Amino acid sequence: MRVNQQRLRSDIESNAEFGAVPTDEGRGRTVLTGSEADRRAREFFCERLRDAGLSISIDEVGNIVGRWVPESADPDAAPVATGSHLDSVPEGGIFDGPLGVYAGLESIRAMQDAGVEPVRPVEVVNFTEEEGQRFDGGLIGSAVAVGEMTSDEALKIEDEDGIPLGDALADIGYRGEAQIDAAEWDSWIELHIEQSERLEDAGVPAGVVTSIVGLSRCSVEIIGEADHAGSTLMDDRSDALAAASEFVLDIEEATNERTEVSETAVGTIGKLDVSPNAPNVISGKVSLTVDIRDVEYDSIEYIIDEAQASLDRIEDERPVETTLTHPWDRHPVEMSDRCRDALHEAGSDAGLGTLDLHSGAGHDTMHVAEVTDAALLFAPSRDGISHNPREWTDWEDCADATRVLAGALATLATE
Amino acid sequence: MRVNQQRLRSDIESNAEFGAVPTDEGRGRTVLTGSEADRRAREFFCERLRDAGLSISIDEVGNIVGRWVPESADPDAAPVATGSHLDSVPEGGIFDGPLGVYAGLESIRAMQDAGVEPVRPVEVVNFTEEEGQRFDGGLIGSAVAVGEMTSDEALKIEDEDGIPLGDALADIGYRGEAQIDAAEWDSWIELHIEQSERLEDAGVPAGVVTSIVGLSRCSVEIIGEADHAGSTLMDDRSDALAAASEFVLDIEEATNERTEVSETAVGTIGKLDVSPNAPNVISGKVSLTVDIRDVEYDSIEYIIDEAQASLDRIEDERPVETTLTHPWDRHPVEMSDRCRDALHEAGSDAGLGTLDLHSGAGHDTMHVAEVTDAALLFAPSRDGISHNPREWTDWEDCADATRVLAGALATLATE
Repeated sequence: MRVNQQRLRSDIESNAEFGAVPTDEGRGRTVLTGSEADRRAREFFCERLRDAGLSISIDEVGNIVGRWVPESADPDAAPVATGSHLDSVPEGGIFDGPLGVYAGLESIRAMQDAGVEPVRPVEVVNFTEEEGQRFDGGLIGSAVAVGEMTSDEALKIEDEDGIPLGDALADIGYRGEAQIDAAEWDSWIELHIEQSERLEDAGVPAGVVTSIVGLSRCSVEIIGEADHAGSTLMDDRSDALAAASEFVLDIEEATNERTEVSETAVGTIGKLDVSPNAPNVISGKVSLTVDIRDVEYDSIEYIIDEAQASLDRIEDERPVETTLTHPWDRHPVEMSDRCRDALHEAGSDAGLGTLDLHSGAGHDTMHVAEVTDAALLFAPSRDGISHNPREWTDWEDCADATRVLAGALATLATE
Repeated sequence: MRVNQQRLRSDIESNAEFGAVPTDEGRGRTVLTGSEADRRAREFFCERLRDAGLSISIDEVGNIVGRWVPESADPDAAPVATGSHLDSVPEGGIFDGPLGVYAGLESIRAMQDAGVEPVRPVEVVNFTEEEGQRFDGGLIGSAVAVGEMTSDEALKIEDEDGIPLGDALADIGYRGEAQIDAAEWDSWIELHIEQSERLEDAGVPAGVVTSIVGLSRCSVEIIGEADHAGSTLMDDRSDALAAASEFVLDIEEATNERTEVSETAVGTIGKLDVSPNAPNVISGKVSLTVDIRDVEYDSIEYIIDEAQASLDRIEDERPVETTLTHPWDRHPVEMSDRCRDALHEAGSDAGLGTLDLHSGAGHDTMHVAEVTDAALLFAPSRDGISHNPREWTDWEDCADATRVLAGALATLATE
């Protein structure tokens, strides 16, 4: 099936204008949920859906679904769905999310152009707040779509300024009234950039994910004593940042140890806030988040145990108090054989190689796989760089992966 | 000489309302230069100066001087000056700065009430931006008053949002036109809270500072690679925060080593910013400030050398790049014997004990001492806590220290 690379590229490049950030190298954007950039990205997506003749529904948490019901299809049949997300991390790249949304739309347009006659409707989805940058946790839209969270619960989640998600969505005109139930989908495939280098190293344009890592987040607070940096002798200090520094290194060491058992284990402290954060005040409090992932859930348990042990040791050795809370946790998820087979066949039909690999990132597909047959397809990422303006996937690679996606969706929709 | 404890307390408590912050324990305030809280604190101070019959001048960087020229004095004689600052760190205490300002004013009122007949004018000063919280560096008002920095240089200093000090002062109506030259002062004494526990431990109400520590600030940047926390294997990471954590611990260790040579050496990393600071992004950059102080300048050189050695080692061992800049540096400063003698005598006359000690904090007096005879007097701080809402000095201690200040100022002004 022919995919229009120029049309796909134009959509992704147009979308990249929303929340664009100045950068020395590459191309970056900041699209936080409920921001003006998010509003414009959603508006542009809806225009593209209408251009392709799709009907649009928007659910209570702002998930947008474009629906194609060709004449060949039974409108009551369980639809085949695809999509991803349009939000980004602060100063993120232009492919993480938008590639999957617009490749999904391009797949529908390609089927239309090719005269494919699906027996099922085909839907393309933009999920709300995948990244969890403004509203904590992430994957919120897909959590609601699979019934793991109610709309009411989701709409009450507050950002750091106490603004609930519901208000943020209403502000930009994307708090809808529809209900989306992913369990009613026949199947789901998400195309996403790989965000590591395995496809690039192997010279293969499409990666078929076997399983998605489990993922845990821990919130840690370390309480010391904010005190004057000049007048407080070294022996009299309770320095929260020095204690937190030991913890950061302990997490790194514990995770490195674990990679000897499971090389895919990762542990990250990417967010750390010092209070009061003044040059001449000893830090009285540090708040940080630990992000732990692996295809083996045992790795996650091991690293959380080591994190607690580290805090216990630090409390013994320094006059600080610590707390570790464990707000969420998700087990590794296997992808559907039926959807994976469709992807391998589509690659083969298009003359494109495919590679089986795991996913270290916890995409919306992780949720969807709980309620229906789901797969995740990767396109190569240059140097594996992501969440960064230097994130890049060649346009040819975007188009090749979209060919694989479109072929698999066509197979699933005509079965 | 009788000091009116209730009047002093009322001034300090009224001043504590400006920028007051909610707190579980103690009493806190945030008074950043050029803020509404700063404007109100300055306005209230000017009212109190007028109530005491003092004339007011405001210089180009917003330093406020209240001047008392009694009939007994030669208006052309070199004045005796006292004062401190009204700005604070974020969520700081209510005594750090305001005690010295209002004890200075109370000393003048006490002299007026007691019928003291000075031969010199007596001035009380509020210096601008002592803390350096909004405009980097700190001690800006006193730097201008001693000619170490020109008004033009100071007014161009920008906050994090690019707003120059000149605009911030103009916004609140405190960018004046006077010139203040501290070199024209006969002498200077600042009363400040001790911010450590030596006076409390010794049960002595007044500390006479022998020397003020030297103080250096280094700015450090550690550049890694912002990358996806799930998709980047541990071996492929360039984690700026993990590298920075090693540096924080190296500074702590080097400073602890140095305390075996000079127990007053302190090294602090109180400000550290992670970028992009998201839970699922490996940190690409950390910026931090190292604050180093001691009465022996050798300690400062030692710790800076160790900081550079630490960064060199970290660059060898991790795929990060680091830079250390050393924007400012100040040698230890000795206090004037003449002023210290006046303080000891005033303590003795008032039946109050005095203790010689060093100052770990770099008060405005550090600047003033470069151009005239200067001294620094400490009042006890409960548990040594400062830069914190739990900072506390008993009202009786405030009044006792003010008695010593007033006696010494009276001696210097009648000589």
